Amino acid sequence: MPSETTAPFAARGSHDEIEEGLGFAPKFDRDGLIGAIVTDAAGGVLMFAHMNAEALKATIETGVAHFWSRSRRALWRKGETSGHEMTVEELRVDCDQDALWLKVRVAGTGAACHTGRKSCFYRAVATGEGALGQPLSLVDDERLFDPAKTYGA
Amino acid sequence: MPSETTAPFAARGSHDEIEEGLGFAPKFDRDGLIGAIVTDAAGGVLMFAHMNAEALKATIETGVAHFWSRSRRALWRKGETSGHEMTVEELRVDCDQDALWLKVRVAGTGAACHTGRKSCFYRAVATGEGALGQPLSLVDDERLFDPAKTYGA
Repeated sequence: MPSETTAPFAARGSHDEIEEGLGFAPKFDRDGLIGAIVTDAAGGVLMFAHMNAEALKATIETGVAHFWSRSRRALWRKGETSGHEMTVEELRVDCDQDALWLKVRVAGTGAACHTGRKSCFYRAVATGEGALGQPLSLVDDERLFDPAKTYGA
Repeated sequence: MPSETTAPFAARGSHDEIEEGLGFAPKFDRDGLIGAIVTDAAGGVLMFAHMNAEALKATIETGVAHFWSRSRRALWRKGETSGHEMTVEELRVDCDQDALWLKVRVAGTGAACHTGRKSCFYRAVATGEGALGQPLSLVDDERLFDPAKTYGA
């Protein structure tokens, strides 16, 4: 799965080139993956997933989000089963080029999470003195679709 | 660095418990790390970093963002050098509990990136037909502080 070749991406240059240059030299980890943060236009984080070079290339070329499914070990066009395809409105890379940020428009119900919710981040962790060990609390918990109907049992 | 013990976090239970339960059972990877997306109140992604169990515990207990610096191999209270401390306004976990989302308020100039910019994501990647291999374009490129003065040479 990891690939030695960086083409069609730029080779990783000096620290300064990576941070200040305009060559796109994404850093894939030892599994050949790079993390991708997905938000909607309003700025809410919808999901976090991984891309390999193939998924990143497909995302760039089609303008539709593709990821690498670590559980299925396969290229994954988001929405291929559920219909919740993600059109990329903007793609950004961070300073050291080892993380991506996709702003997307989600088709269908607008749900990004396989549990049927809009966002995968539907639970909050308490913070502050005495918060360690407290249970999570549900936020943005509405189900926009029924996963049992969409994905089967 | 990786730790076998999950305390004070919950043990990883069944798939259903992890996704639908209220026990906080963060999944640390083989390096003992979990990815953390940091956004501001307006929803812009400021940075992406990693936490180990110690950094996550410190973040929860103090309400101030702590990470694990992979380059320095040390616990890192964000802003300890630059003054850009991050107060956590909300901490969330995703469906499979292997990613975190912090909404923060940044002290000082409000810059999250060590390059002096507000966000680490100051460059956009072109998408669409013919976009592969195109140079990055600068966006949100304003420097809020001078890194040479803050961090030294």
